[in-house]
Amino acid sequence: MIMFNCDYNEGCCQEIMDEMIRTNMEQHPGYSEDGITAEAKALVKKACEREDVDVHIMVGGTQTNMTVISAGLRPYQGVVAPATGHIARHETGAIEAHGHKVLALPETDGKISAEQIERFCADHYRDESFEHIVQPGMVYISSPTELGTVYKRAEIEAIRKVCDKYHLYLFLDGARLGYGLACDENDLSIPFLARVCDVFYIGGTKQGALMGEAVVIANDDLKKDFRYLIKQNGGMFAKGRLLGLQFKVLMQNGLYMKYSRHAIAMAKKIVAGFAEAGIPRYSNSPTNQQFFVMEDGMALKLAENYGFSTEGWTDDTHRIVRFCTSWATKEENVEKLLADIKKLA
Amino acid sequence: MIMFNCDYNEGCCQEIMDEMIRTNMEQHPGYSEDGITAEAKALVKKACEREDVDVHIMVGGTQTNMTVISAGLRPYQGVVAPATGHIARHETGAIEAHGHKVLALPETDGKISAEQIERFCADHYRDESFEHIVQPGMVYISSPTELGTVYKRAEIEAIRKVCDKYHLYLFLDGARLGYGLACDENDLSIPFLARVCDVFYIGGTKQGALMGEAVVIANDDLKKDFRYLIKQNGGMFAKGRLLGLQFKVLMQNGLYMKYSRHAIAMAKKIVAGFAEAGIPRYSNSPTNQQFFVMEDGMALKLAENYGFSTEGWTDDTHRIVRFCTSWATKEENVEKLLADIKKLA
Amino acid sequence: MIMFNCDYNEGCCQEIMDEMIRTNMEQHPGYSEDGITAEAKALVKKACEREDVDVHIMVGGTQTNMTVISAGLRPYQGVVAPATGHIARHETGAIEAHGHKVLALPETDGKISAEQIERFCADHYRDESFEHIVQPGMVYISSPTELGTVYKRAEIEAIRKVCDKYHLYLFLDGARLGYGLACDENDLSIPFLARVCDVFYIGGTKQGALMGEAVVIANDDLKKDFRYLIKQNGGMFAKGRLLGLQFKVLMQNGLYMKYSRHAIAMAKKIVAGFAEAGIPRYSNSPTNQQFFVMEDGMALKLAENYGFSTEGWTDDTHRIVRFCTSWATKEENVEKLLADIKKLA
Amino acid sequence: MIMFNCDYNEGCCQEIMDEMIRTNMEQHPGYSEDGITAEAKALVKKACEREDVDVHIMVGGTQTNMTVISAGLRPYQGVVAPATGHIARHETGAIEAHGHKVLALPETDGKISAEQIERFCADHYRDESFEHIVQPGMVYISSPTELGTVYKRAEIEAIRKVCDKYHLYLFLDGARLGYGLACDENDLSIPFLARVCDVFYIGGTKQGALMGEAVVIANDDLKKDFRYLIKQNGGMFAKGRLLGLQFKVLMQNGLYMKYSRHAIAMAKKIVAGFAEAGIPRYSNSPTNQQFFVMEDGMALKLAENYGFSTEGWTDDTHRIVRFCTSWATKEENVEKLLADIKKLA
Repeated sequence: MIMFNCDYNEGCCQEIMDEMIRTNMEQHPGYSEDGITAEAKALVKKACEREDVDVHIMVGGTQTNMTVISAGLRPYQGVVAPATGHIARHETGAIEAHGHKVLALPETDGKISAEQIERFCADHYRDESFEHIVQPGMVYISSPTELGTVYKRAEIEAIRKVCDKYHLYLFLDGARLGYGLACDENDLSIPFLARVCDVFYIGGTKQGALMGEAVVIANDDLKKDFRYLIKQNGGMFAKGRLLGLQFKVLMQNGLYMKYSRHAIAMAKKIVAGFAEAGIPRYSNSPTNQQFFVMEDGMALKLAENYGFSTEGWTDDTHRIVRFCTSWATKEENVEKLLADIKKLA
Repeated sequence: MIMFNCDYNEGCCQEIMDEMIRTNMEQHPGYSEDGITAEAKALVKKACEREDVDVHIMVGGTQTNMTVISAGLRPYQGVVAPATGHIARHETGAIEAHGHKVLALPETDGKISAEQIERFCADHYRDESFEHIVQPGMVYISSPTELGTVYKRAEIEAIRKVCDKYHLYLFLDGARLGYGLACDENDLSIPFLARVCDVFYIGGTKQGALMGEAVVIANDDLKKDFRYLIKQNGGMFAKGRLLGLQFKVLMQNGLYMKYSRHAIAMAKKIVAGFAEAGIPRYSNSPTNQQFFVMEDGMALKLAENYGFSTEGWTDDTHRIVRFCTSWATKEENVEKLLADIKKLA
Repeated sequence: MIMFNCDYNEGCCQEIMDEMIRTNMEQHPGYSEDGITAEAKALVKKACEREDVDVHIMVGGTQTNMTVISAGLRPYQGVVAPATGHIARHETGAIEAHGHKVLALPETDGKISAEQIERFCADHYRDESFEHIVQPGMVYISSPTELGTVYKRAEIEAIRKVCDKYHLYLFLDGARLGYGLACDENDLSIPFLARVCDVFYIGGTKQGALMGEAVVIANDDLKKDFRYLIKQNGGMFAKGRLLGLQFKVLMQNGLYMKYSRHAIAMAKKIVAGFAEAGIPRYSNSPTNQQFFVMEDGMALKLAENYGFSTEGWTDDTHRIVRFCTSWATKEENVEKLLADIKKLA
Repeated sequence: MIMFNCDYNEGCCQEIMDEMIRTNMEQHPGYSEDGITAEAKALVKKACEREDVDVHIMVGGTQTNMTVISAGLRPYQGVVAPATGHIARHETGAIEAHGHKVLALPETDGKISAEQIERFCADHYRDESFEHIVQPGMVYISSPTELGTVYKRAEIEAIRKVCDKYHLYLFLDGARLGYGLACDENDLSIPFLARVCDVFYIGGTKQGALMGEAVVIANDDLKKDFRYLIKQNGGMFAKGRLLGLQFKVLMQNGLYMKYSRHAIAMAKKIVAGFAEAGIPRYSNSPTNQQFFVMEDGMALKLAENYGFSTEGWTDDTHRIVRFCTSWATKEENVEKLLADIKKLA
């Protein structure tokens, strides 16, 4: 079985493994107060081209999302998000469990626009019974999105303006940030995000680490007492040095982008091969998640040897399938897949 | 100013006031453990034609909704509701503040169907990552709905079947229940609701009382320790005898239905008068809330002397307006309104 | 049965009843946006000798406590309170249900001191793992306390200083405020509380109203969006005019203090009579709640004709009993009680 | 600097590291649905001598505690725990953040007794206003405790009886379980815990793993939908195979107990050496955490070369210090410490 079903099927990249082996029996203080983590944070700040941000390295995405969002909202506020957003759809109500409504807006290719947010907020304050309605307090977007698409610089800047107008925090979920930055469509950068967002994170789990998301807090209001919140949310990792170690490795020598570019190259190869085999794309994702419309019989046949996920159906005999590449995708496996696709098509 | 903007503009009906005056200086135990409340509960049970239900009289609707829903759901469960439902839209996220997602379905005239709920639940369990998605645990509907429409017996029975299949509680919000039972389309009854719902309530606040909603719990699983929950949610009313008194009065001598019928009669008069004046209806509500499409200029003119609410706009120059009648609506005020409407039309 | 078991056994004072009768069929907007409530708020502000406070009239104490506390705390903060405090002991965990720990300190006569709070906060920040411990964010006290005792001006001023030092809000629960202000030991005043507290409330439910607590918010940080919080907590009373009406009546012509003084006079009569009968006091409460140590046999005999509460036992044959007076206590009932006590002693 | 300040200063044991290296580039499904985790679960069940328990391997202790406790309690229930319990003291209110009060009882050496719990529950139901008080719903104990002490079989069996009487779940936190099982005083065993507890866990983080706690659920009522709760609480680890791998290694060939015994041997060496040097013990811990009373000057001198924690002060010049050993403690470091202690004493 060769797996393309997600981007966390393997362990970690060799560089991280080597550093884990090297430092394994060193003694370090717990709870991310160690020297390795300090180095990692310094590297993240450098990547942001800002010394005045706070960096916290957390274990996983859902935990990060719920901690950041509960840091920013008052009890009666909600977070605006695309209906397909991870927090809206795939976190078993973690945000609601923290007391906050996810204010889901209809999405286009996984994205929402400044115009939509503007209209939503304007409507809120125009409503006679606005105090009876959850107040928007934050905007959550991800780039790449759940559908593999990316935001453009101008789109995020426009959202920023609406956030300023309506006093909303802007939070960008970058669980797959590297894959976005490495794609052909990209015009974002880490320093740009550190300027325009109040808070965002650089994903590790899906990008070569065993686990870990590096949260960058740019807005002072969100910095205060953030470690209390991490602990309260069960995210204070005892051996924090491991989180630090992984980002220390990834943030050096261009490793994060090197692995990201590899995933994109593999994804493009899949796109080309599927096109050749006449299998239509479902979205125009430029990143490591690729969606196609596949005839059921072919999908079942292919599933005998390949892992991929079914995301829905377009009609009675055709399904939407997702193939992911990652830092770990072997070119030979892609080639096997394309050969088999060719045979089945 | 004559107000038609809601159904809680006046105090209480005279019969309640008389009983309050009569019993004011009597001494009673607090927290609804008094004899008056016991009588009221007995009358509600009689109206339900079931002795084995639990009855709790609570102060208001939002409080009731959040208490009932948190009684029925486990932390990872959500409540299915129409997108226009009170809990989905007009309770400032009270359900989310209790940790639960409102699983909003698209509504038709304020209602959702058994088919929709069936499809939603089937989709949930079919999803590969169902454990990452909020599990449906309850269905919330109201009758009359926020748009004044009512459910039919067959519709609720069909929903009941889906609830049984997917282990969902069925909760009916009856804040305006009497107005529904008194309307021409009605084929529901209180005993029917006590058989088919796990829990529902009989509204008092909008139906002649100063405040109060009589919650009827039919399902044993929801009965246990309910008073702890009332207290925790700030709903344990010190002078509970007042809540008891009001339902004791309303549930006797057909008073609840008498006042309900009055509101319906007044609403029908408004419908007829507006039709005569050529003002189109926005919905086919058979109850005490009537929605019309009105030209902006006329609405502004009318607003000089009448209270009514604006619910939205259908185009640049026409708004959706709501006129409510109630137990307290004076026929002469309706006549004044219709006369003025005629002049303005 | 003559009841002394609590101070909410009767309905409301006649002045309130008269005003309810007079205004019953007037039409007013809902949700406390009516003119009567506006008048009540103005009277409360006048009583505070401050125009710049916000006033909200809420239905009951638990609801008020949970709303105010959740307004003031960030998710990882707790509220310091005496172990006997209402929020610590008798609200079925309403504060925890909002996510906040009650940081209970040992009390003396229901009170905590500035020294205790100072030590508690100093210990928090001195602890190596302070981020793993709930951070104190607010101080909750009540005056009169659950044991009937009152704070002195100097005690509250000292607590204020500690609050300033450690960035804690000071919240005073005045559910029985009038009974405190009317007692012989009192040196507090409403204007003093409006200067020294960030937020406090003037109790109505136990002081002559059917229900209602007037919350006074002096600190701007707590004012913002408070009505959203009221709604979310199920406390947005539809017919808010009733809450307004009651405080409008109580705050005029010295009525609130007149009724408070009556309760104190009755309490002093009970204290004197019990002393004469040789029944020892359990506390030195100067207010309307009086605690005595009574032999079990006598208590059981007395309970045949009088309502009072048992609060615990001092040994195998003696219990702690509480007798409450109120605005409504009839002197003849006190005299009957004292006569019977005399006979039984 | 040689660290004895906690038991998570190093990475993981070599056997785990070897297996991580060996399997690193294998592809496995995410979210603990992989084959390695299945093997680990089977080994844990075997250690429990019960096939009918559910096993979930989670990342850390606070996350485990909050997830288990929220699985077992209804909203108005609290969890009984010793005042020094981790959930009561060192989780930044994570339990309260889930809506539940920690009902802290006074502890003796970190432990609470069946008698205390019995009295607490009896008092609850005897109270006239029991519905106004948080209802006990679960008992939380840890063994070893925060003070290094352990429960005896008879003590836990007595607690079990009280739990049965009052319908309480019994939850044992075994973050350092191995160190307890390996100590001289021990008469517990994993099969015993799997019979007597409703749920408990076997700690990995402090016992040779990078991270991980293996939760064993014996009571069917707690099993249902537990993975939804894990996800909602941010504990669904993407690369769950890593958690599985670590317990697969630890649960084989007696490795867990071998490392546990090493820590105990090292602790005993410290106890003996400190006794020789005349430094009094603060508790009679038989496990890997040792507490002493040390003169301040000596402590400061020692802190130049050794890490240990200060837990409080016994008087103006003496502090309580904690020294931890672990699976990783090097005997040569213990010897250096004892030599230096000798010099300083």
